[in-house]
Amino acid sequence: MKTNRMPTPGLSLGCDYNPEQWSPDVWREDAALMREAGVDLVAVNIFGWSNLEPAPGQYHFDDLDEVVELMHANGIRVNLGTGTSSPPPWLTTLHPEVLPAAADGTLRYPGGRQAWCPSSAVFRDRAYALVRQVAERYGDHPAVALWHVSNELGCHNALCYCEESAEAFRSWLRRRYGKIETLNEAWGTSFWSQRYGDWAEVNPPRLALSLRNPAQIVDFHRFSSDELLDYYRGEAEILRGHSTVPVTTNFMVTAHIRNLDYWSWAPEMDLIANDHYLDHRLGDPVAELSFAADLTRGLAQGRPWMLMEQAAGAVNWQPHNVTKAPGELIRNTLTHVARGADSICFFQWRASAQGAEKFHSALLPHAGTDTVAWREVLKLSATLDRIEEVAGTTVESDVALLFSWESWWSAEGEARPSQAVEYLDQVHAAHRALRELGVTVDVVSPEADLSGYRLVVVPCLYMVGDLAAVRIADYVQGGGHLLVTFFSGIVDERDRIRLGGYPGAFRDVLGVTAEEFVPLKPGDLLNMTNGGTGSLWSERLRTTTASPVVSYVDGPLPGTAALTRNEFGGGVAWYLATSPDPRSMREIMRNVTVNADISRTGPESNGSVEAVRRSGENGSYLFVINHGTEAVEYPVTGFDLVTGEPVESLLRVEGGGVSVVREERA
Amino acid sequence: MKTNRMPTPGLSLGCDYNPEQWSPDVWREDAALMREAGVDLVAVNIFGWSNLEPAPGQYHFDDLDEVVELMHANGIRVNLGTGTSSPPPWLTTLHPEVLPAAADGTLRYPGGRQAWCPSSAVFRDRAYALVRQVAERYGDHPAVALWHVSNELGCHNALCYCEESAEAFRSWLRRRYGKIETLNEAWGTSFWSQRYGDWAEVNPPRLALSLRNPAQIVDFHRFSSDELLDYYRGEAEILRGHSTVPVTTNFMVTAHIRNLDYWSWAPEMDLIANDHYLDHRLGDPVAELSFAADLTRGLAQGRPWMLMEQAAGAVNWQPHNVTKAPGELIRNTLTHVARGADSICFFQWRASAQGAEKFHSALLPHAGTDTVAWREVLKLSATLDRIEEVAGTTVESDVALLFSWESWWSAEGEARPSQAVEYLDQVHAAHRALRELGVTVDVVSPEADLSGYRLVVVPCLYMVGDLAAVRIADYVQGGGHLLVTFFSGIVDERDRIRLGGYPGAFRDVLGVTAEEFVPLKPGDLLNMTNGGTGSLWSERLRTTTASPVVSYVDGPLPGTAALTRNEFGGGVAWYLATSPDPRSMREIMRNVTVNADISRTGPESNGSVEAVRRSGENGSYLFVINHGTEAVEYPVTGFDLVTGEPVESLLRVEGGGVSVVREERA
Amino acid sequence: MKTNRMPTPGLSLGCDYNPEQWSPDVWREDAALMREAGVDLVAVNIFGWSNLEPAPGQYHFDDLDEVVELMHANGIRVNLGTGTSSPPPWLTTLHPEVLPAAADGTLRYPGGRQAWCPSSAVFRDRAYALVRQVAERYGDHPAVALWHVSNELGCHNALCYCEESAEAFRSWLRRRYGKIETLNEAWGTSFWSQRYGDWAEVNPPRLALSLRNPAQIVDFHRFSSDELLDYYRGEAEILRGHSTVPVTTNFMVTAHIRNLDYWSWAPEMDLIANDHYLDHRLGDPVAELSFAADLTRGLAQGRPWMLMEQAAGAVNWQPHNVTKAPGELIRNTLTHVARGADSICFFQWRASAQGAEKFHSALLPHAGTDTVAWREVLKLSATLDRIEEVAGTTVESDVALLFSWESWWSAEGEARPSQAVEYLDQVHAAHRALRELGVTVDVVSPEADLSGYRLVVVPCLYMVGDLAAVRIADYVQGGGHLLVTFFSGIVDERDRIRLGGYPGAFRDVLGVTAEEFVPLKPGDLLNMTNGGTGSLWSERLRTTTASPVVSYVDGPLPGTAALTRNEFGGGVAWYLATSPDPRSMREIMRNVTVNADISRTGPESNGSVEAVRRSGENGSYLFVINHGTEAVEYPVTGFDLVTGEPVESLLRVEGGGVSVVREERA
Repeated sequence: MKTNRMPTPGLSLGCDYNPEQWSPDVWREDAALMREAGVDLVAVNIFGWSNLEPAPGQYHFDDLDEVVELMHANGIRVNLGTGTSSPPPWLTTLHPEVLPAAADGTLRYPGGRQAWCPSSAVFRDRAYALVRQVAERYGDHPAVALWHVSNELGCHNALCYCEESAEAFRSWLRRRYGKIETLNEAWGTSFWSQRYGDWAEVNPPRLALSLRNPAQIVDFHRFSSDELLDYYRGEAEILRGHSTVPVTTNFMVTAHIRNLDYWSWAPEMDLIANDHYLDHRLGDPVAELSFAADLTRGLAQGRPWMLMEQAAGAVNWQPHNVTKAPGELIRNTLTHVARGADSICFFQWRASAQGAEKFHSALLPHAGTDTVAWREVLKLSATLDRIEEVAGTTVESDVALLFSWESWWSAEGEARPSQAVEYLDQVHAAHRALRELGVTVDVVSPEADLSGYRLVVVPCLYMVGDLAAVRIADYVQGGGHLLVTFFSGIVDERDRIRLGGYPGAFRDVLGVTAEEFVPLKPGDLLNMTNGGTGSLWSERLRTTTASPVVSYVDGPLPGTAALTRNEFGGGVAWYLATSPDPRSMREIMRNVTVNADISRTGPESNGSVEAVRRSGENGSYLFVINHGTEAVEYPVTGFDLVTGEPVESLLRVEGGGVSVVREERA
Repeated sequence: MKTNRMPTPGLSLGCDYNPEQWSPDVWREDAALMREAGVDLVAVNIFGWSNLEPAPGQYHFDDLDEVVELMHANGIRVNLGTGTSSPPPWLTTLHPEVLPAAADGTLRYPGGRQAWCPSSAVFRDRAYALVRQVAERYGDHPAVALWHVSNELGCHNALCYCEESAEAFRSWLRRRYGKIETLNEAWGTSFWSQRYGDWAEVNPPRLALSLRNPAQIVDFHRFSSDELLDYYRGEAEILRGHSTVPVTTNFMVTAHIRNLDYWSWAPEMDLIANDHYLDHRLGDPVAELSFAADLTRGLAQGRPWMLMEQAAGAVNWQPHNVTKAPGELIRNTLTHVARGADSICFFQWRASAQGAEKFHSALLPHAGTDTVAWREVLKLSATLDRIEEVAGTTVESDVALLFSWESWWSAEGEARPSQAVEYLDQVHAAHRALRELGVTVDVVSPEADLSGYRLVVVPCLYMVGDLAAVRIADYVQGGGHLLVTFFSGIVDERDRIRLGGYPGAFRDVLGVTAEEFVPLKPGDLLNMTNGGTGSLWSERLRTTTASPVVSYVDGPLPGTAALTRNEFGGGVAWYLATSPDPRSMREIMRNVTVNADISRTGPESNGSVEAVRRSGENGSYLFVINHGTEAVEYPVTGFDLVTGEPVESLLRVEGGGVSVVREERA
Repeated sequence: MKTNRMPTPGLSLGCDYNPEQWSPDVWREDAALMREAGVDLVAVNIFGWSNLEPAPGQYHFDDLDEVVELMHANGIRVNLGTGTSSPPPWLTTLHPEVLPAAADGTLRYPGGRQAWCPSSAVFRDRAYALVRQVAERYGDHPAVALWHVSNELGCHNALCYCEESAEAFRSWLRRRYGKIETLNEAWGTSFWSQRYGDWAEVNPPRLALSLRNPAQIVDFHRFSSDELLDYYRGEAEILRGHSTVPVTTNFMVTAHIRNLDYWSWAPEMDLIANDHYLDHRLGDPVAELSFAADLTRGLAQGRPWMLMEQAAGAVNWQPHNVTKAPGELIRNTLTHVARGADSICFFQWRASAQGAEKFHSALLPHAGTDTVAWREVLKLSATLDRIEEVAGTTVESDVALLFSWESWWSAEGEARPSQAVEYLDQVHAAHRALRELGVTVDVVSPEADLSGYRLVVVPCLYMVGDLAAVRIADYVQGGGHLLVTFFSGIVDERDRIRLGGYPGAFRDVLGVTAEEFVPLKPGDLLNMTNGGTGSLWSERLRTTTASPVVSYVDGPLPGTAALTRNEFGGGVAWYLATSPDPRSMREIMRNVTVNADISRTGPESNGSVEAVRRSGENGSYLFVINHGTEAVEYPVTGFDLVTGEPVESLLRVEGGGVSVVREERA
């Protein structure tokens, strides 16, 4: 991150605003209602291209000028989109080569959004031309508080298999490997007669009749992430030439999108912004929200960040679009704030009447302001006002969890020991157990500096480089505590097996060696000596220097260790070789955290309560969010900013309630 | 409909006949067996093209001549196909541009049937040339009783995405909207930067990376329906130039085909003909048969219609092709007759030995005439003879159910509140409840004249135009009763949300406003104050002038109304905001029909019994069909045409039996 | 089969070896470990092309020379691959027309393996040029014991729909049918207007909008199988020009691959080799292994064969890759040997570190030699040494089961009575019942000479030619016993229904006629008079000369026969018209085998025990393999080669154990 400047002081409340969809008299009504709702930051021009440039080179800024002035006149700051997210129809009509290609070579057509190839030179020329116009016109406008490059980059079009992408992939590979023989070694092309004699023979991993080269697939993911980052860089450079306002784009740290490696993106953002929507296809959507917020804070290196989009109610793209119950919006939002968000924005201001998102909720619903939904927005706004003093404070933790997009890509290869093992499930399981114990977690890169942590958790880190492996071992050597879960440390960055027994990168620090993976069929359970069950996975595991802690009592490997503990240098390293039931997972994590002397921020629960502390120069704030129906009590003394009441030694939070306590220093 | 002339007097019994598949000596055996079975109408030349025109412009009519003469000599009338349904191989070899394209741009190839683009100029030229030949040759042949244009138009090829289709779509849009800016408004192209500057930029809704424009999709459905109708018109015009015999084509009013808006087609037919096959993938195939028959009668504006195809036994295209039990063929057939069919035809006469339909049943099975199946056909034929005097009579009803292909297309958009809500399910649920109560229903267009009805049922009419909305309100104002079920009246013809609270088109007449949809996950149930349960859907509903009748007692909205009743002008309007269990649905429908003073035609059942009355100048006929295993009794006096016995005040119909009682006037 | 020469005397133990993936110092370690493990045959150069010919026409044999010499120096024979299995990247870059096309016309790209069209002239030219080089260089090398043409031909690329394939298909059809009118008759092109006027109009059965012509699909399968056989022939001819060593390729007789008709391939092989992997997606993977081994023996005409590939532990391509428990490898391997294998080879020697198969097990695992897996390999090797004297002996059986790839292709057409009826399920059910009874079965072609058998089982032989039908009837006439199961004898080789009642080919011999198929929905069960249940299928069946044996007591056809018995000539013919539960199936098979006086080789079980006898000039060997956990006993006297102990009248085999008893002649 370059600067981390928030667009407004305090906790901003914002939203996407698409005035193109409404008439100017509605704009004025909107401005008045925004003031009523306390909205102080609006994102405009996100999908502006076809309006700003209705024909090639003909720019029309009158409407956008008027909207920006209207916001300014109402004291609302502008998060100004560059408008390049989706090309206008004339562009793909004139230049069909802009269209992205699927893995089978068929094109993907206009009619939705992001119908462009990330490597398209024509697209870049035209998009940058628009950005130049926008930047010149609004670069020093006093209303503009933030630049919003494109929108949700890579949400749909990250992986393009067209010939222009192929050529760009070749250039990227040439830069990465230098010599074709180095690529051959990295990709293991001796296998299945794939040895390349020339760069021109290399292609994206297009649809094949059989299993494709997994190293090629991982590199194509890396390339695709870099290619869009390169595109971002082009826009950002233009903007910075005309403006001193921070530049960013909205990430999608969420369960179902995984194509960009945000660890490489984050350093180029002036601040970190994320879009997050509850995903009701998951077993525990709220736990995923907490994880995503912690990961976003990790991308922001612990500093405050923006929630650039969330939904006031239901979304429209899930199979069954569950709406929010009264109170849920405040709980969800304060979960983000507790975990570091200093800006809370929504998609979108006014529910669309037309288009593919007309059933997506908004701050102002189709039914207008005489609605429960609108009153919930006003309540949220008032709550944010009351807790505004938390802005700028940060979250501290003794525990780091290592997260890796590269492992996500590579651990879910086409042919692997078990397709039931999914990376994010394993990461979520570890995070959820810590959250249930009331422990706050930093989610960091595998190559992060670990020296400040008492415990490092490494779930399913399938791909790990030498540097990270050494750093993790050194961390334990120096007294740190480590928990590694199965299918970690299996391959290096080339997706090459670390030979000699699994987990190759961590055998020494863990004091174990696994001869063989013994995955289970879905539904099969292993009973364990701790009274719990394991599923999905086991290993023919031998301890070398470690001690078994929990073992299987049945199944294919009775007596074999499921959990081991190894003293290594000044530290302790645990290895978990199965996927325990959630209760066992929590017990295992309890042992590990107690052993590492980790302090808890809040009460233990089944995940229904979460407590996070934000601290700053002027004191600390304990957020307690009760997602459950029963009241909870927790010892704390201070002043509850939400209720405006003092808290004498014991805080009580009703079912569904939230508290933000400015703690008294003892 | 232009004329509604049935092809023969009385109740004809007919079938498709494909003599091309057999040798001439088999033809003569067939003619004799047809006479034995009472077949008096055969459809020939349905797939005749490659035989009639084996090479471009070389026509060979000898075989068809002989078959037509053979039928004529045996007193069997001919339903003469134009033979254009599937092009011969030489056409797609010479002109591959005739082949249709899928949404991803890939072609669909010959090898099955209907491998042609509906907009293909080459296809039309060649097909019309063949029609001209056929019309000239047989236009005044005395055997010909009906023209059968193509076959099951649009069954497979309705939606073509090729460039010729794109150009035709553009022309259609130009005619519909006049100016590109009108199209932009209609499609809401301000959303996602889709604003068009020129017609040439517009395309069919080809496969995109993300959600497509829903208004574009609906218009593409309209265009596609119109395009095939235009094709039909071309054939019909040629035929009418050479013949005075009625012209039609076989509709597919059924649960799994939905691409043609038959409300726009029906007026151009000389009579309405439908193909119907029991669909054992459905929960209640027989209830769907009844609904389809009622809808077909609606297309015929209440006048008699033809069943152009049904199966004597099993079909071949379902996953498990259930055959018919003895008696089932008569029950199914009389269900069609009861609901207005005056002609009963089959696909096909003789079971094919080769080709993709060789496992489809026929009147004459592979095993020949010493079979249960053949004897069932003879029984059916005798039964039709006995009830022949019902021909020409019509069905009367106090209840109209509004049905809309446009709502079917649009309500099932790519992104909607719940993908578990399917249009036809909701329509069927309403129809089934009325049928179980013994109430006869007319299924009519949303723009039909409602003045003759005491009750109008509007299930899930998602898309409704202003005219229909006003007409429905006026109908209630004038004293009518109305029941609207959820997800009705949501959008106008442009798929644009009717703002201000749902259901926008019906808020006033129903006296309610819904702030928000609250769809349920599959399997979730809401208990209601009437002892029943709701599923799939609920709404944050406020009554304005209506009274709540049934409310939820648990779930996300306890105390909120699930069913409301509103007095509006001289009438009454009910709103049902959830999907009740079938028993509750029947109870709710009982209240509504009793309230509207609707008379019943037959006994109440779980759907196993159906009773429908056909009436004419010479009296009335009560059809009672017992699909169940237990006998039923029903008070009626008259003469049972099926048994040839008088009925004294109480009709008894055994399990599996049928009766058609010529009623005595009291 | 031309010669059936095994590559080595005795029971060879072999493996694929891919030295390209490792450095020369690893090669030397490998050779030493191979000796330790008793490996005496290695397959090399299977995927050698891109290494041998890194650029067009530039050949580099140094590495292969060194490896062949290393093997030779260590007394290990070489199974030499021609290296053509997958083309190098330069070939598809220079000649993209080599790429295969899917049914929708899209290409399939390099990146995996087998990305070549079987009809590609360019591919053949280049591949044969390489084969010539390899054959010339190694044709008389003393280490070479076997030629291994390509690899798993047709595993992925058997069906190609490109234009070059279309042209080859046309030529094949011209050769098969001579006149276009003969093709029209064979394919039934009168149906759906598909009559061809010229060969140029004919195409592969590419993706269509509707059901395709089933005869065209079956012929395309035949063509595709022949086309690869033709390709094989080209390689074999070159090899035979330079070498006297036997030539073969590895078949894939397994549950999930079905594109080659190995009955037509087998006669052209110098010995029969098969690849077999346990498929844990099946209900009973071990029963499938036994069946596949019997079928492979059938392809070898009863003579010994090679197991060219199996896995030491888990594979990598199933959803959940279950590994082998200790002992399982020996049990599986001895099941192959018992059923005729004289050579046991593995994929592969050393587990790959890179590429799509890096998670596939190998003889030498990633974790090295200090592993349970390696010790299991050594145990297996020792066991094979102890039983080596069985080499060259053969298996004898009184029972033949007819198996047909043509029926597999055609019985699973796009539109059929029930998609739940799958060919292989029905074949497996019959084989499993015989295996449970301890009966050994030969699996033979429908056109095999049946005269030596006492019982012939014909499961689901949907397609049967006149010759085979006559031969089967003659066999019964002459005193043989026959069991036919449902959906047999339905069509001739043209996929044309045999008219007059089902099963048309077998009505007379069975003494029944079925008027109609009455398939059941999944989950529906019919109770039968034998106390068992039928599922999936029933028929409206009449006996003519047969007697009913078992009938239904409920369902749609109470009282109708499910099993019939007919005396025909000097023999007996049974017909089974449903799919019985496994216990009933075993009871029915017990009756049939007792009636036919079939002797058992081993004890009856639920499939957990299998016993097979191999015999030769010098005596007989009884293999007893106990897959269960309980010990079994069986009366036999002799010497157990596995334990090295005499067996006195009663053999006891512990749970999980194996015995091979050299039997004493009584």
